[in-house]
Amino acid sequence: MKAIEGGVTAAKGYKAAGTSAGIKKNGTMDMALIVSEVPCVAAGTFTTNVVKAAPVKWDQDIVYNHPYAQAIICNSGVANACTGAEGYGYCKQTAEAAAKILGIAADSVLVASTGVIGQQIPIDKITAGVEKLAPMVLPTLEGGTLAAQAIMTTDTVKKEVAVMVEIGGKEVTIGGCCKGSGMIHPNMCTMLGFVTTDIDITKELLQKALSASIRDTFNMVSVDGDTSTNDTVLLLANGMAGNEKITEENDDYRKFCDALNEVNTWLAKAIAGDGEGATALFEVKIVGAESKEQAVTLAKSVVTSNLTKAAIYGHDANWGRILCAMGYSGAQFDPEKVDLFFESEAGKLQIIENGVACDYSEEEATRILSEPAVTALADIKMGDATATAWGCDLTYEYVKINADYRS
Amino acid sequence: MKAIEGGVTAAKGYKAAGTSAGIKKNGTMDMALIVSEVPCVAAGTFTTNVVKAAPVKWDQDIVYNHPYAQAIICNSGVANACTGAEGYGYCKQTAEAAAKILGIAADSVLVASTGVIGQQIPIDKITAGVEKLAPMVLPTLEGGTLAAQAIMTTDTVKKEVAVMVEIGGKEVTIGGCCKGSGMIHPNMCTMLGFVTTDIDITKELLQKALSASIRDTFNMVSVDGDTSTNDTVLLLANGMAGNEKITEENDDYRKFCDALNEVNTWLAKAIAGDGEGATALFEVKIVGAESKEQAVTLAKSVVTSNLTKAAIYGHDANWGRILCAMGYSGAQFDPEKVDLFFESEAGKLQIIENGVACDYSEEEATRILSEPAVTALADIKMGDATATAWGCDLTYEYVKINADYRS
Repeated sequence: MKAIEGGVTAAKGYKAAGTSAGIKKNGTMDMALIVSEVPCVAAGTFTTNVVKAAPVKWDQDIVYNHPYAQAIICNSGVANACTGAEGYGYCKQTAEAAAKILGIAADSVLVASTGVIGQQIPIDKITAGVEKLAPMVLPTLEGGTLAAQAIMTTDTVKKEVAVMVEIGGKEVTIGGCCKGSGMIHPNMCTMLGFVTTDIDITKELLQKALSASIRDTFNMVSVDGDTSTNDTVLLLANGMAGNEKITEENDDYRKFCDALNEVNTWLAKAIAGDGEGATALFEVKIVGAESKEQAVTLAKSVVTSNLTKAAIYGHDANWGRILCAMGYSGAQFDPEKVDLFFESEAGKLQIIENGVACDYSEEEATRILSEPAVTALADIKMGDATATAWGCDLTYEYVKINADYRS
Repeated sequence: MKAIEGGVTAAKGYKAAGTSAGIKKNGTMDMALIVSEVPCVAAGTFTTNVVKAAPVKWDQDIVYNHPYAQAIICNSGVANACTGAEGYGYCKQTAEAAAKILGIAADSVLVASTGVIGQQIPIDKITAGVEKLAPMVLPTLEGGTLAAQAIMTTDTVKKEVAVMVEIGGKEVTIGGCCKGSGMIHPNMCTMLGFVTTDIDITKELLQKALSASIRDTFNMVSVDGDTSTNDTVLLLANGMAGNEKITEENDDYRKFCDALNEVNTWLAKAIAGDGEGATALFEVKIVGAESKEQAVTLAKSVVTSNLTKAAIYGHDANWGRILCAMGYSGAQFDPEKVDLFFESEAGKLQIIENGVACDYSEEEATRILSEPAVTALADIKMGDATATAWGCDLTYEYVKINADYRS
């Protein structure tokens, strides 16, 4: 497996474009189109929020009930959430407009939105945007980059990645882009991820590979613990790599899963490190757990602890907060067996041994915690299960961003 | 029932004092003693954190396994948490020192600590403090006020309250003080509450009354979702009111429960409104729930949502975040049946009807949300159950406070 340039257009047969359809007040790009030359099997994972945006419901119907998908149309600026039947109708109109100009079926067009909750989307601007985008799509890396930029709200950097892996003697490519929660306008906290691949695989195994990968990647990211109404990750596979079709969980399947994890992990960490107002990527690793579930519960509890995140911002080795967050996570463990380490480019330092503070240097700890990516590693000595969660520090900027009026 | 002056010394037979024992670097008061003339039955509720501070374990033993308690000794500055067997030994030494000078049994002395996690308490300063406090205790309201001040970390205001209620022809008094999480030194996020009463009641019913009351009061407070290692509420009853002893859940018992709720509710709201860096008390009421548990889950999810709390700080009627927080709470409900209102001294305004935005005035909403105490009221139209949670807004100051180095 090797990393290569590009994103959603890195794999064979995909084209993409981004443009400004006038949805965002500031005139920046706010619509993206990703389209495959041929129909794809599609997999998706969606927000668990009881309050689901209209596009989530539209995509769930396509992913769960239709054999193929061929295009993804995405707008930023308005989330089309809490918009009732009218909002769902706009998803249908958007898909129909794209289907017509692309010459494909409306029920093969996935839609996604991110932005302010509770407003109806400006459907005329959306359909005009679709007609503008269709002739613009490019098979080049540039096309993918434009799409990656167009779905940004106020992420500070575009997020795209691609890898190539040889499967059954063929070069298979997986590329993706995503947007996270570097946001100025409140409510734009949606996480969207679009991943494309040219592998030939059954729809069932594609979904299985995505669902398994999401558990350890996108689902382990937390910027503020607020699960959006729009969170969506879509994975399209168009089979153009020409590999022998994957129909069972064989070595080829496992190779694909590893490559998919590579892409999703990169995208997930990119979202965490670019969290609202973040100055640091905060990684929490739990090792020695008796079950995966226990490790996940502990890792997520620490990575979402406001007190811990504020301490990371302060470069403060405030280990008591980490043990405290593990303690209220709901998972059972023996605090007096916990070893805790801080780790970064600047080094690794043990802070606690068996639940009690080591005689460590606060200065060295602060030096380690002053890097742009820091890790807290806790060993609870109960078994072999591990989990890693990614978040960011809690900063003045986070509050400033989210206290601002919607504009 | 009527509100009266004072706190833990308002009820008959209680004395208290506060002093500086040199534990806090800034020289402010850091030790309090509350003592009853006669043995009391004691009830307690404690943190559910797996990581329990030594004083929590000491008090649990006394409350669960001993018939009487007569004194509470509390220090601020060091939490005596994550301190192993050595830390527990210091609780014993503290209780023994108090027992000796007060002429009571060591196993009737409750101890409490709040402060930095992971440091051993300076036991010599603590025992010297105990000897200094014992002769200082006063039966006057001033004694209770000194105790209320001594347990503050950087709460911005002391928190004490008292009520009087006639039970069985006798005047029964309940008074309490507490400390919350208005903190500068990281880790001092412990909630401590001490309530005293002169009612004559069995230990079993006292515990039952406290446990029931806590569910709707202290347990409905959240400043940052971080459950401390030291959270403790203690309730002492010395029987000096001379009422006919309450031995069953009769009208007298219910009268006492109502009065206790009054005291605990006041103390709980005082903690929320004085949360770290808070500019506003944020109350979340869920009505029309099908069960109490569902209402509690929804109310707590909203009151702990960073995005919602930041919007309250911004006086922004950002209702999408509230619906979003209800949606990811884990409770099931129909988003398209939800009505949402904002309420404060400045008025009441409906924001959502059946899950969709009303045509409300953002200006009026902002005016309502600019008060020092604001309420979000959500009706989910499923039943008759309700719950109220109290928190505060998320401010720059919260981050500043918690990013500072421990000092």
